[in-house]
Amino acid sequence: MKKLKIGVVDTTFSRVDMAKIVIREIKKIEPSAETVRITVPGIKDLPGAAHRLIKSENCDGVITLGWVGKNLVDKLSYVVSSLGLIMVQIIDDSIVIDVTVHEDEATDDKTLKKIAEDRAKKHARNLIYMVKDPRYLEKYAGKGLRQGYPGVGPIE
Amino acid sequence: MKKLKIGVVDTTFSRVDMAKIVIREIKKIEPSAETVRITVPGIKDLPGAAHRLIKSENCDGVITLGWVGKNLVDKLSYVVSSLGLIMVQIIDDSIVIDVTVHEDEATDDKTLKKIAEDRAKKHARNLIYMVKDPRYLEKYAGKGLRQGYPGVGPIE
Amino acid sequence: MKKLKIGVVDTTFSRVDMAKIVIREIKKIEPSAETVRITVPGIKDLPGAAHRLIKSENCDGVITLGWVGKNLVDKLSYVVSSLGLIMVQIIDDSIVIDVTVHEDEATDDKTLKKIAEDRAKKHARNLIYMVKDPRYLEKYAGKGLRQGYPGVGPIE
Amino acid sequence: MKKLKIGVVDTTFSRVDMAKIVIREIKKIEPSAETVRITVPGIKDLPGAAHRLIKSENCDGVITLGWVGKNLVDKLSYVVSSLGLIMVQIIDDSIVIDVTVHEDEATDDKTLKKIAEDRAKKHARNLIYMVKDPRYLEKYAGKGLRQGYPGVGPIE
Amino acid sequence: MKKLKIGVVDTTFSRVDMAKIVIREIKKIEPSAETVRITVPGIKDLPGAAHRLIKSENCDGVITLGWVGKNLVDKLSYVVSSLGLIMVQIIDDSIVIDVTVHEDEATDDKTLKKIAEDRAKKHARNLIYMVKDPRYLEKYAGKGLRQGYPGVGPIE
Repeated sequence: MKKLKIGVVDTTFSRVDMAKIVIREIKKIEPSAETVRITVPGIKDLPGAAHRLIKSENCDGVITLGWVGKNLVDKLSYVVSSLGLIMVQIIDDSIVIDVTVHEDEATDDKTLKKIAEDRAKKHARNLIYMVKDPRYLEKYAGKGLRQGYPGVGPIE
Repeated sequence: MKKLKIGVVDTTFSRVDMAKIVIREIKKIEPSAETVRITVPGIKDLPGAAHRLIKSENCDGVITLGWVGKNLVDKLSYVVSSLGLIMVQIIDDSIVIDVTVHEDEATDDKTLKKIAEDRAKKHARNLIYMVKDPRYLEKYAGKGLRQGYPGVGPIE
Repeated sequence: MKKLKIGVVDTTFSRVDMAKIVIREIKKIEPSAETVRITVPGIKDLPGAAHRLIKSENCDGVITLGWVGKNLVDKLSYVVSSLGLIMVQIIDDSIVIDVTVHEDEATDDKTLKKIAEDRAKKHARNLIYMVKDPRYLEKYAGKGLRQGYPGVGPIE
Repeated sequence: MKKLKIGVVDTTFSRVDMAKIVIREIKKIEPSAETVRITVPGIKDLPGAAHRLIKSENCDGVITLGWVGKNLVDKLSYVVSSLGLIMVQIIDDSIVIDVTVHEDEATDDKTLKKIAEDRAKKHARNLIYMVKDPRYLEKYAGKGLRQGYPGVGPIE
Repeated sequence: MKKLKIGVVDTTFSRVDMAKIVIREIKKIEPSAETVRITVPGIKDLPGAAHRLIKSENCDGVITLGWVGKNLVDKLSYVVSSLGLIMVQIIDDSIVIDVTVHEDEATDDKTLKKIAEDRAKKHARNLIYMVKDPRYLEKYAGKGLRQGYPGVGPIE
C-alpha cells in the first residue's frame, strides 16, 4: 500500500504543543506514514497553510490545530478559519480535519491542556481512518463520540 | 429509468444513527436505489465528504446528517458547515440536503431522538423527490411543512 | 424581442404560496414570459435550485421565495442561503432576486400573509424590470421603497 | 491617458439619492470620466450588479451605495452583501468601493442624510484615487480619516 | 537567494501608521527585500488590494494592516475582510498575514498605539519567516506567543 503523507499545521498562539501529540499518535497507529509540519502564528493562517501542504507537498490529508481565545473577535476568527478550511477541502479535493481548542472550555490551565491532548490524539486517529478507509468510522456512527471529553453515548 | 445512487453522510458526534433511518427510508420508496455511506467525526467534516461522494462516487444526490450542540461555537460551526454544503451544490452541480438536529431543540433525550428520526425520514423522501422530479414538491409549496415536527399548515 | 424565461423557487416550509402570486404578477406585466418553477424543502435549498434553473433551464432571471423562522438557527440559515444566492449571481453571471419573509415580522398570521403577498408581488416586478432594462429602476433610486410594507419615502 | 469608466450601483431602498452625489463628485474631480449607473432594490442585489458592470460594461472601478436598516436581519444582509462585493473584487480582478449608510447611525433624518452625503462624496473621491493611482492614498495612511464624519486624526 | 518582494496594505481609517513600522522592520531583518505599499480607505478594501499586489506585482507575501472600530458593524466588517483575505490565499496560492487592531482593545490612545506597534512589528517578522522558511516558526509552536501583548507562555 502507498505510504501516507500527512500534513500537520499548528500555531505559535497555542499554549499546548498539539502537533507533537498528533505526530506521535500518527506514528503509533500508522508507522510508515510521513508527516510534514508547518507552524503559523494563529488560526486565520491555518487555511492558507493547509492549502500549501496539499498543493506543494501533495499531502493525503491535513490536520490543523487551532487555539481560540474567549473574546468575540476570537470567535469571529474561528468562523473565518473554519470556513476557509472547508473551502480548501472543496477546492483542493482534500481531507482536512479542523481541530480547535477554545480557552473558555475550561477555567483552569490543567483541564484545558487535558482537553487539547485528548482532542488532538483522537482527531489524529480520525484523520488516518478517513484517509485510509472512508467506511471505517461507520461503526461509530451516532455513538455520541466526543474529542476532548469522554463520549456521551447514543440515545437509547 | 437510470438506477439512482444516493450519498449519505453522518457523524460519530451524533447521538442517533440517522443514516440507518435514511437508508431504510430510501430503500422503501425507491427500492432500486443504491446508497453509499460515509461517516465523519462532526458537522464541519460534512461538506468535504459530500464533495467526495459527488466527485468520486458520482452520486445523484447526497443527504448529510448533522448533530449540533447548544453552545455558540456549535452554532458557528453550523454556519460554516451549511455554507460549505451550499458551495458544494453550486461548484459540483449537485443536490445536497443538509439535515441538522440541534441539541437545544428538546430538553429530554427521548424527544430529541423522535425529532431526529422524523426529520431524517422526511428529508430522505425530500431528496429522492428532488432528484427524481424537480416538480414533485410543488403540490406542497407554501403548506408549512416541517421536518422533525408536525407541519404547521398554510396561513388561510 | 426575445421571450423571457423566469425561474421561480419556493419552499414547502413557507406558509404562503408566494410562487403563485409571483407567477400571476409576471404574467400580468410580461404576458409573453415563460416561468419555470421548482419547490424545495427550505431556504438552504434555494441556492442550489437557483443554480440549476440557470444552468439547466437557461433562465434569464430567478426569484427565490424564502420563509424564515424566528430562532437563531433560522437566522443563521438565512445568512448562508442569502450568501449562496449572491455566489450564484457571481459564478453563474445571473440575476437572482432573494425574497424572504421572516416569521417575526408580524405577531399575527393575517399580517404576515399580507407582508408576504406584497413583497412577492413587488419583487416579481423588480426582477422583470432588472432583466429587461438595467436602467429602469433608476427613477426610484433613493426613494425609500419597501417590499412587504408601504414605502417610507426619501429624506427631504 | 485612458478615459475612465466608473460603475455606480445604488438602491431603491435607500432614502437618499447617493448616486447623484457620487456622479457629480466624479465629474468634478475627473471630468473626462464616464459613469454607468444601475439601480437595484436593496443591498443584497449590489454584488450581482457590480459584477455585471465589470463583466459587461468593462468598468475600471465600481462604487456601490447601500442603505442598511437597524434590525438583525438588516445587519446579516449587510454581511452577505459586503462579502459578495469582496468576492467580486477577487474573482473579477476589480476595484469596488462598498459604501453603506446604517439607519441606526443617527436618530434624526437630517443627520442621517448629512452622513450619507459626506460618505458618498468622500468615497467617490477614494475610488477615483484608487483607480488612477494605487499609491495616492499613502499620504493619508494612519491619519484616522472617516467618511460620513469628520476625521478623528492619528494617535500622536 | 531570490530577493523577496513583500506587499504592504494599510488604511486611511487607521489611527497609527503601521505600514511605516512594518516596512522598517522588514528592512531590518531582510535588508535586500523590496516592499510595495498600497493604502486603501478601510478594512473591507484590504482583500482586493492584497489580491492586486499578488497578481500584478507578483509579491511573495503580503501583510495587511487593518484598524477595526468597536461597533457591531465594525466587527461584521472584520469578518468579511478576514474571510476575503483567506480566500485570496487559497485562490491566489499566496501567503497573507492579516493584522488587525481593534479600538476596544484599550481604553486609552497611548496603549492602543503600543498594541498596534508591537503587533505590526511582530507580524512583519512572522511574514518574513513564513515566506523564507515554512519550518522556521516550529520552534515557537504551542508557546503561547501574542502579538500586541507579551506572550502568555505554554501551559506547563
